Amino acid sequence: MAENKKLVEAITSMEEDFAQWYTDVVKKAELIDYASVKGCMVIKPAGYALWENIQKELDAKFKETGVENVYMPMFIPESLLQKEKDHVEGFAPEVAWVTHGGLEPLQERLCVRPTSETLFCDFYKDDVHSYRDLPKCYNQWCSVVRWEKTTRPFLRSREFLWQEGHTVHATAEDAEERTIQMLNVYADFCEEYLAIPVIKGRKTDKEKFAGAEATYTIEALMHDGKALQSGTSHNFGDGFARAFGIQYADKDNTLKYCHQTSWGMSTRIIGGIIMVHGDDSGLVLPPRIAPIHVMVIPIQQKKEGVLEKAAELKDRLVKAGFKVKVDDSDKSPGFKFAEQEMRGIPVRIEIGPKDIENGKCIVVRRDTREKIEVVLGELETKVKEILETMQKDMLERARKHVEAHTYEAKEYDEFCDIINNKPGFVKAMWCGDVSCEEKIKEDTTATSRCMPFEQETISDHCVCCGRPAKKMVYWGKAY
Amino acid sequence: MAENKKLVEAITSMEEDFAQWYTDVVKKAELIDYASVKGCMVIKPAGYALWENIQKELDAKFKETGVENVYMPMFIPESLLQKEKDHVEGFAPEVAWVTHGGLEPLQERLCVRPTSETLFCDFYKDDVHSYRDLPKCYNQWCSVVRWEKTTRPFLRSREFLWQEGHTVHATAEDAEERTIQMLNVYADFCEEYLAIPVIKGRKTDKEKFAGAEATYTIEALMHDGKALQSGTSHNFGDGFARAFGIQYADKDNTLKYCHQTSWGMSTRIIGGIIMVHGDDSGLVLPPRIAPIHVMVIPIQQKKEGVLEKAAELKDRLVKAGFKVKVDDSDKSPGFKFAEQEMRGIPVRIEIGPKDIENGKCIVVRRDTREKIEVVLGELETKVKEILETMQKDMLERARKHVEAHTYEAKEYDEFCDIINNKPGFVKAMWCGDVSCEEKIKEDTTATSRCMPFEQETISDHCVCCGRPAKKMVYWGKAY
Repeated sequence: MAENKKLVEAITSMEEDFAQWYTDVVKKAELIDYASVKGCMVIKPAGYALWENIQKELDAKFKETGVENVYMPMFIPESLLQKEKDHVEGFAPEVAWVTHGGLEPLQERLCVRPTSETLFCDFYKDDVHSYRDLPKCYNQWCSVVRWEKTTRPFLRSREFLWQEGHTVHATAEDAEERTIQMLNVYADFCEEYLAIPVIKGRKTDKEKFAGAEATYTIEALMHDGKALQSGTSHNFGDGFARAFGIQYADKDNTLKYCHQTSWGMSTRIIGGIIMVHGDDSGLVLPPRIAPIHVMVIPIQQKKEGVLEKAAELKDRLVKAGFKVKVDDSDKSPGFKFAEQEMRGIPVRIEIGPKDIENGKCIVVRRDTREKIEVVLGELETKVKEILETMQKDMLERARKHVEAHTYEAKEYDEFCDIINNKPGFVKAMWCGDVSCEEKIKEDTTATSRCMPFEQETISDHCVCCGRPAKKMVYWGKAY
Repeated sequence: MAENKKLVEAITSMEEDFAQWYTDVVKKAELIDYASVKGCMVIKPAGYALWENIQKELDAKFKETGVENVYMPMFIPESLLQKEKDHVEGFAPEVAWVTHGGLEPLQERLCVRPTSETLFCDFYKDDVHSYRDLPKCYNQWCSVVRWEKTTRPFLRSREFLWQEGHTVHATAEDAEERTIQMLNVYADFCEEYLAIPVIKGRKTDKEKFAGAEATYTIEALMHDGKALQSGTSHNFGDGFARAFGIQYADKDNTLKYCHQTSWGMSTRIIGGIIMVHGDDSGLVLPPRIAPIHVMVIPIQQKKEGVLEKAAELKDRLVKAGFKVKVDDSDKSPGFKFAEQEMRGIPVRIEIGPKDIENGKCIVVRRDTREKIEVVLGELETKVKEILETMQKDMLERARKHVEAHTYEAKEYDEFCDIINNKPGFVKAMWCGDVSCEEKIKEDTTATSRCMPFEQETISDHCVCCGRPAKKMVYWGKAY
């Protein structure tokens, strides 16, 4: 048990120091390692396999809606980045600049893409001619760079992986429809696959994307009560089209400006999975996104027939469509349990000589640690059942956590008191004035997370200034 | 027919100007577009879908051999790039340098990865401790940057997509085995999926990778008789391990240096597919890698029941596992045929009122243009058969092309005559001295492509200097 204890002791408990717990988990579960470039990360096999699963599912959902994948260059000439005024103001302060190619200085410096609106616009302006060419719904999977001052693995790093969809439409209505459609793709994906419930809504003008007419967001609540913006979808109206000259000949033969959208989800969401589901033993992965579903751990593996039986169970489960490994290393079972728990593998199977004799095994759920005795003949059915139940329970548990940590406030004292003492979302009314957002941020560090689609009336006046209320807003401290 | 002719006329014929034909095809088949950054390309949906299929198949093959995917940062600090002497000399002249992050100059400039040996080594030096940690077989799919002076779509561009595998092993034998294993993965993939036959062999010291002990290559022959290096696999011995201090404690508790490999295949191979299989009507895609297998083209589509029948055939084929589209646009059938041919879609189905009446359709193979009358009831079986035959025939045809364009030369006059007048490979003996390679390159622009694993004895003396021969070499002009 000594080695087992050592592994577990190496993690800080969540209650003691959540930030340290997070860092411990990403390292101990072998999701990432720090790189020699400050603020960049090495995504290790366990972390990358998660991203691959996210990619696979999201990509299929995108393609179902008619999206096609492309690849744009990673460099943006400075003059191109500057074409849309708000956009360049938002991004220029945090881009990395390439100034030399080989031994020669470049005539014009290039930034490494922080996002690719300008490149897509530059492409679309020559690619779109007629209403027959519309819509174009392109997406790319790539890495982007933002020169952040303070960084944290997955949550904020100088380079991260993401997908960015960029679409062009004939009308404002089509663009708005696509914007909402993709937000729903993200929301459904988070709930169905990641077991993360999200609040869907619109960002205030202060919080919207640089250059967007409207930004929609899904906001998730982490275990510590802080919010995580988990995916965004932007409607650009015809702003970029006017800046870049993207026009099409309509059916009536008049030239019109296109309407555009963009939408993205990144490796940041892996931070969300960790912080929504993790516990003091490490990661807890939702079965539908877990790279390994089952770890078979033989007990007294040197006894005759144990390793063979473990391998047989694995083979049966693999045949039934599960991803399974056997831990037949020379570590103790206790140590293996701790490792499987740290890695968040949804289910472990314990099988020893006695179990074999009795024709059964023990299946242990990672989330509840419930031990379930399973007759070997029913293994496939039971494992399937257990994984499905676990997936459902994890979403339900996360949903209850959001409910239990969502508050309402009518007056400012009350609002500040909750924000400072009860981590979570606060629903409160807002007058629509940016100065109230600024005051709240200054007083509490909380920001407006979104104006949810499902509006409620908490009171008739702004929680901050007391003037007539326009919108109900979710407020919170955020990553 | 006018519109049809126009489309076809827009391509230069291969015989007239192969380079222009290539450029026409990549543009007309909508594989790429030029980007605003010189030497970079926009990979459009048809091009990217090809790359996705290549990724999918290769990635599965890698994983079968125990490879895991990871992601390393895209930036390499200058000091890290300089750790291995030969490596930095090979790459420093052609890297892009990042000198500013946001508004601040960087303390140390960073290059955008031209390849990631140095990053993997920097990671492995802390990640590998004991023989128990070995081997580690990691791979990443990413883009890399090399600041080339002259560029061509897919073949040589400043940024391109690739995979780079990097492995660490306990012994020299293990590293050599992995190097050859991955070369074979590439060779098999090219033959089985891309219908491209390749020559497997070892590069001479002059042509090997910067920092490698041995580089193995697969060389393919394009339609114009020029060679394309299509995939490489490098054995680094313990050179990088010594430069970076990657050591492990062996079973006997002594510290030993690791042995390493790396191997890569890139979007360059798409250029190979185009130049091996294409013809004067455009692209010809091998069925096993084609994003769309079948284009159904309705004839007299305004007649009752034609579009419905086309959709029905599509549905049946999709159900049978094929990727199928119907071209129901308002273009003429002839124009649609030309477009399908330009895009290299392996098979088209022509279905009109008369065909429906007779309960059959016409299936046309892209490669031979053979028209096959198929009874509708047998459609699935016949299409499967036709695609399989086409895949086999394409490989066979390419193989015959290589055979017909592979020559032997004993003496230098003969050698130069062939190299200059008969495009293709020349098999000739070599003394092993780099000065002969240099002379040949100067005299003819041809280079040693590889020392093939299947050695033959053409003569007893070096084709260039007449001294005793050591190796038979494939020579050729190359992309």
